[in-house]
Amino acid sequence: MSASRGKQHSSVTLDLHAVILAGGTGTRFWPLSRRLAPKQLIALLSDRTMLQETVLRVAPAVPAERRWVVTGGDLADEVGRQLRAVDANATVIVEPVGRNTAPAIAVAAHRVIERDPDAVMAVLPADHVIAKSDAFLRCLARAEEVAREGFLVTIGLVPRRAETGYGYIQRGEPLRVGSPASGVKPDADASSVTLDRCLASSVTLDRCLAFRVARFVEKPDRAAAERYVAAGDYFWNGGMFIWRAAAILDELRAHAPAVAEAATRIAEAMKAGADRNRIDELYRTIEAVSIDYAVMERTRRAAVIPAELGWSDVGSWAALDDVAEKDERGNVISGRVLDFGSERSILYAQDRLVATIGLKDVIVVDTPDATLVCDKDRAQDVRRVVETLEAQRAQEHVTHKTVQRPWGAYTVLEEGECYKIKRIVINPSSRLSLQMHRQRSEHWVVVSGTARVTCGDRVYDVKTNESTYIPPQTRHRLENPDPAIPLQIIEVQNGPYLGEDDIVRFDDDFGRTGR
Amino acid sequence: MSASRGKQHSSVTLDLHAVILAGGTGTRFWPLSRRLAPKQLIALLSDRTMLQETVLRVAPAVPAERRWVVTGGDLADEVGRQLRAVDANATVIVEPVGRNTAPAIAVAAHRVIERDPDAVMAVLPADHVIAKSDAFLRCLARAEEVAREGFLVTIGLVPRRAETGYGYIQRGEPLRVGSPASGVKPDADASSVTLDRCLASSVTLDRCLAFRVARFVEKPDRAAAERYVAAGDYFWNGGMFIWRAAAILDELRAHAPAVAEAATRIAEAMKAGADRNRIDELYRTIEAVSIDYAVMERTRRAAVIPAELGWSDVGSWAALDDVAEKDERGNVISGRVLDFGSERSILYAQDRLVATIGLKDVIVVDTPDATLVCDKDRAQDVRRVVETLEAQRAQEHVTHKTVQRPWGAYTVLEEGECYKIKRIVINPSSRLSLQMHRQRSEHWVVVSGTARVTCGDRVYDVKTNESTYIPPQTRHRLENPDPAIPLQIIEVQNGPYLGEDDIVRFDDDFGRTGR
Repeated sequence: MSASRGKQHSSVTLDLHAVILAGGTGTRFWPLSRRLAPKQLIALLSDRTMLQETVLRVAPAVPAERRWVVTGGDLADEVGRQLRAVDANATVIVEPVGRNTAPAIAVAAHRVIERDPDAVMAVLPADHVIAKSDAFLRCLARAEEVAREGFLVTIGLVPRRAETGYGYIQRGEPLRVGSPASGVKPDADASSVTLDRCLASSVTLDRCLAFRVARFVEKPDRAAAERYVAAGDYFWNGGMFIWRAAAILDELRAHAPAVAEAATRIAEAMKAGADRNRIDELYRTIEAVSIDYAVMERTRRAAVIPAELGWSDVGSWAALDDVAEKDERGNVISGRVLDFGSERSILYAQDRLVATIGLKDVIVVDTPDATLVCDKDRAQDVRRVVETLEAQRAQEHVTHKTVQRPWGAYTVLEEGECYKIKRIVINPSSRLSLQMHRQRSEHWVVVSGTARVTCGDRVYDVKTNESTYIPPQTRHRLENPDPAIPLQIIEVQNGPYLGEDDIVRFDDDFGRTGR
Repeated sequence: MSASRGKQHSSVTLDLHAVILAGGTGTRFWPLSRRLAPKQLIALLSDRTMLQETVLRVAPAVPAERRWVVTGGDLADEVGRQLRAVDANATVIVEPVGRNTAPAIAVAAHRVIERDPDAVMAVLPADHVIAKSDAFLRCLARAEEVAREGFLVTIGLVPRRAETGYGYIQRGEPLRVGSPASGVKPDADASSVTLDRCLASSVTLDRCLAFRVARFVEKPDRAAAERYVAAGDYFWNGGMFIWRAAAILDELRAHAPAVAEAATRIAEAMKAGADRNRIDELYRTIEAVSIDYAVMERTRRAAVIPAELGWSDVGSWAALDDVAEKDERGNVISGRVLDFGSERSILYAQDRLVATIGLKDVIVVDTPDATLVCDKDRAQDVRRVVETLEAQRAQEHVTHKTVQRPWGAYTVLEEGECYKIKRIVINPSSRLSLQMHRQRSEHWVVVSGTARVTCGDRVYDVKTNESTYIPPQTRHRLENPDPAIPLQIIEVQNGPYLGEDDIVRFDDDFGRTGR
């Protein structure tokens, strides 16, 4: 199972900034997604996460200094790790609290303008699939041209069915601005190209004709959705926008002045190097509102470029049917699955064996601490599981058994009365904070690499197959001094209380002292 | 979910020997059952295993010195552990290889005769459900009477549906031997009681009327099964037999002389204290044949006592529908299952969370290393999973992650390149063999209890929250000297080869040196 991957070298060059929105905290891909591992940060369709796929999709045409990722404070470490892992860095804008898309976009627009007052920016969700990367880049190039003329451009996805889960965009009159995308000769008269012709030919679609937006429609009922698809002049709203950064701020000031003002204050505070508490405070006062509602549905400058990009927002497990490779019986299968005659099912295994027999339209997702088995028609109800787990104050919706940290990762292998066992991986040249636990002692057995251990006043190395002991109430630090080889240790904790919050940090490479 | 439990004190007293056949190696309850944890040794319907339930069912009426369990060499340790755990001991007869029921019964009959030449023995499968324990004991009491007259008695279960998976027994003429079971007055003339009356009234069934067997029928087709159930004089063959031990040996000599002769040689060798190799050799030559085929279908002395005992052989996961408690939507649910609207499904969780949504007639069984999701109509195909795992030389059909040992148990928590982590529990006053590993070293961290460790020439104690290190090629032993508290340690193994077969045993409490 793999999404088609964008070519690493595209003939398209873009002069725009790519602002990737990666703040979502979706629950619909539980148990693969968790609060601290939301959909955009998991590998759903390839060995790369959706964020990585999104960044790599624009990377051939947009250099690192024009790439931005907006995300939440809880996710920022992991976002940074994922970007570094595919060597596709970006400037990360951290939102202390999520406030929907309008504030995120407004703050990003200010930051972009600081670098280039005339910049065009593309706003791209981090958790969508776009199978046709080259067409997507050509579409962005055309959108950039139209945006430079002052329009707020959206990409309208050609609807493949009467979906009631998406908003729709009705196109209005054709625009005669700019020229069709690079490598394709312009039509003599764009307005003579009917939408039917446009839809009938992918070549014509490639020319990225632009239209005024007649109207935006919220998620319709079934009958309306069928009318829209039959009419041919409606497109799915995929939440992708291209505009001059200055233009979106102008429109925000006109249509949502409070949001615009709050965003300006936040951007100024960031520029002035205000401390985190001040930024947090400003974010808390800003209204949570979508850019669609705040601007797009009100502006007279909206334009739409219809496109067929193999797009999906992958809104639920069932949506994998649209985008993942299937076997001959229509199953999407990943991991160590032994299947006997299932049909149209979605079968995800991770570390463990999953055997399936004779299932029809069933979703099975197995993870180290939780398994989901769901009728495909009920995929939307996965959120009810997450809500129930929240109400039970459970853990299986918050993190995976393996928890990423800026210095590496740990996996809880087992917890019993008075003991807990972790496997800890420390990245090359990384170290944990200098810390102390009041209640627990720790035994460390090095299973690969060499550990540099601080314990009280001593600093010493512990090699593979050696162990050491950290008594309670003793300052200690674990470090991997090797510049290349990860360090792996098994930690056995003993004590009357083993919560992660029994930690006093004295010195931390990641600014976490005092937490 | 719980099977109904027999009362611990019954008014019925039996003078017979109970021979429980516990040698089965079923695959149909995978992944809960494994080769080394077959159905009779797992807790399917209560917190007791089916073997424990079977022994406890007869225990109120049959004392330990008249209880026998026949099982395979691989399972004998675990059988003994399970019997001790419910304080219901029995003499265990170990078969080095399974040879179907006739040899197992013949050898047991010899052993029973050694203790009492006139003994009546009841042969009982260890993996069936009998909900009505009191009725069962009354039935055995009546069968004992009939058996003392020389008959080979079977219990015929009143069929609840036209099942094609069972053999049937057709009753013949009523027998006038003995008197109906204790506590119930005899009919004036048993032969005047028609089967219709017998079936119409559970009181009459309680009187345990006995009939000659007209014939045994192998698993019938659907039409025949329906005819049998409509006719009313056919009963399910549940594989329960009651006879004088001498009588079954007589009949074996008459109808299956080779089996009878081989069984005699085995019993004599056992009596003479022959070594295991000799017994193994004798078993290997004996023909694998069922007692039904070898004797029951041929003898003229067969009798049947019809009974309604809430019986099921629980032949597959789907059969739990017959015997397990259900919720209001017809689901059988066990363990930490969060269900949203499933119907008629069988949902088994163990340590981990299982969330199910909108399933219909689906079986979900989650274990620490494998998960099964199966359409209920395909439950018989679970064996295909096991066959595939065998062909792949996988491990998930052989043992569970937690492996029982005579001294306790171990659980593999994780295996990585060059390391393996186990949690080891050592029973009070128990110890492992004095042993050595050529390839691996072991770190032991005591998480509860106190370990007495032999390492090379030293013997020393390691207390809770202390650790020790066993280098490769060093004789060592782990012991729990405490008479009451289990010892729990975490073992981290390091080395280039970590297979269980890298072990040299020098001294072993369980006769395993030289294996």
